Amino acid sequence: MKVLFIGGIKSGKSLNAEKYIQKISKAKPVYLATTEFIDDETKQRIQQHQKQRSDNFITVEEALVLSDEIEKHEKTAVLVECLSVWVNNMLYHEKSFEDMQEEINKVMMQERDVVFVINDVSCGVIPENALARKFVDVNGKIAQLVAAECDEVYHVVAGIATKIK
Amino acid sequence: MKVLFIGGIKSGKSLNAEKYIQKISKAKPVYLATTEFIDDETKQRIQQHQKQRSDNFITVEEALVLSDEIEKHEKTAVLVECLSVWVNNMLYHEKSFEDMQEEINKVMMQERDVVFVINDVSCGVIPENALARKFVDVNGKIAQLVAAECDEVYHVVAGIATKIK
Amino acid sequence: MKVLFIGGIKSGKSLNAEKYIQKISKAKPVYLATTEFIDDETKQRIQQHQKQRSDNFITVEEALVLSDEIEKHEKTAVLVECLSVWVNNMLYHEKSFEDMQEEINKVMMQERDVVFVINDVSCGVIPENALARKFVDVNGKIAQLVAAECDEVYHVVAGIATKIK
Repeated sequence: MKVLFIGGIKSGKSLNAEKYIQKISKAKPVYLATTEFIDDETKQRIQQHQKQRSDNFITVEEALVLSDEIEKHEKTAVLVECLSVWVNNMLYHEKSFEDMQEEINKVMMQERDVVFVINDVSCGVIPENALARKFVDVNGKIAQLVAAECDEVYHVVAGIATKIK
Repeated sequence: MKVLFIGGIKSGKSLNAEKYIQKISKAKPVYLATTEFIDDETKQRIQQHQKQRSDNFITVEEALVLSDEIEKHEKTAVLVECLSVWVNNMLYHEKSFEDMQEEINKVMMQERDVVFVINDVSCGVIPENALARKFVDVNGKIAQLVAAECDEVYHVVAGIATKIK
Repeated sequence: MKVLFIGGIKSGKSLNAEKYIQKISKAKPVYLATTEFIDDETKQRIQQHQKQRSDNFITVEEALVLSDEIEKHEKTAVLVECLSVWVNNMLYHEKSFEDMQEEINKVMMQERDVVFVINDVSCGVIPENALARKFVDVNGKIAQLVAAECDEVYHVVAGIATKIK
């Protein structure tokens, strides 16, 4: 089973996804953090979050090759938190949209329970910054691609998740 | 009864909230304007709006302590227009998220009919400006907090209010 | 019949609108491109898109006076792609909101099948740039105006169109 939660910044998408995966996972779910460690402060903040989550999740980290990590977890659901950071990582490492598409397709073909979280960045004015414009485009195309393959899609506004598929 | 209308800039959230409160309020509803007067032009524009509303609303102004003002209006519903401006005021006066939380909790515990309006600023790219980033974060957290305590929540897009709770 | 699809950048609003119009149009539908040609690169890109669409659509171009073009197509549905670009054109040519309102009203009074696409730019932080702010305001007001007159309105998120009217 594949599920997507999409919403804006501080919309409550992560909290809703975390509650959802606790319900569907038979064993303690895996929290797949896509963040790449950049500086010590970020690292520290992430380790703190990880500690807070430790009762409810097994945390693993993977910035690029999601499918290899997800493949390992046959008996428990995996929360991918989040796809927008992954898109950012992939762009940073000069991967094309086709590379991302291929990676997403691999995950979709695995018989695993995966809950994806993605940030909706589509409803502002078109950014002046070319890199930001590219990110908005690719993030939107990945959201469409993942949503098309998911069994359920939830749109999160003000902490409230509405099922749109 | 507590109700929230959330939507983007010029989404029609205010018009929908105004129509809604006219239906539920037994007496002429109170329009609680959260705007702080900064310059004469803004003041003039607000006074003009106030004049236009005067047939349908009693307008009062409060930039920070919403609960004291709402407490006064036992017999008529209060429209808080809008929470995003209030968040902005609170940040400007160096109030913390916890201060805002406390104030919202006070309002929620009052047996009053309140309709809240909040601006959805969550779906653009993450702003480069640190102050804007903080505003987006706090505004989102307040939207979640208020929505969780409301009896009904409406998401407004292109003037159309969809009940999401 | 009048229908509106609203969604963010790369939300899949256009694809949904194109599928929809193929279903409702008796003859090959008209694709009314509102883009003004600015440079050769843009022109080339548009001609390529046009070629790709040629099996499914008859493409016509009109940057400002939509009603005259729509009037001509009595027997086939017209896809207006997109209203946000049209708003931009109208602002560029120093047309007022009232001018746009008048033009939209003309289209709405025509007994034609029209599917409109509009970009939702309402949910970012208020832009610092005055021109961008004006665009966000007018685009939102046009979205409201059109939605109010449409028989059906669809909100598109991650490629999924949800009927909100």
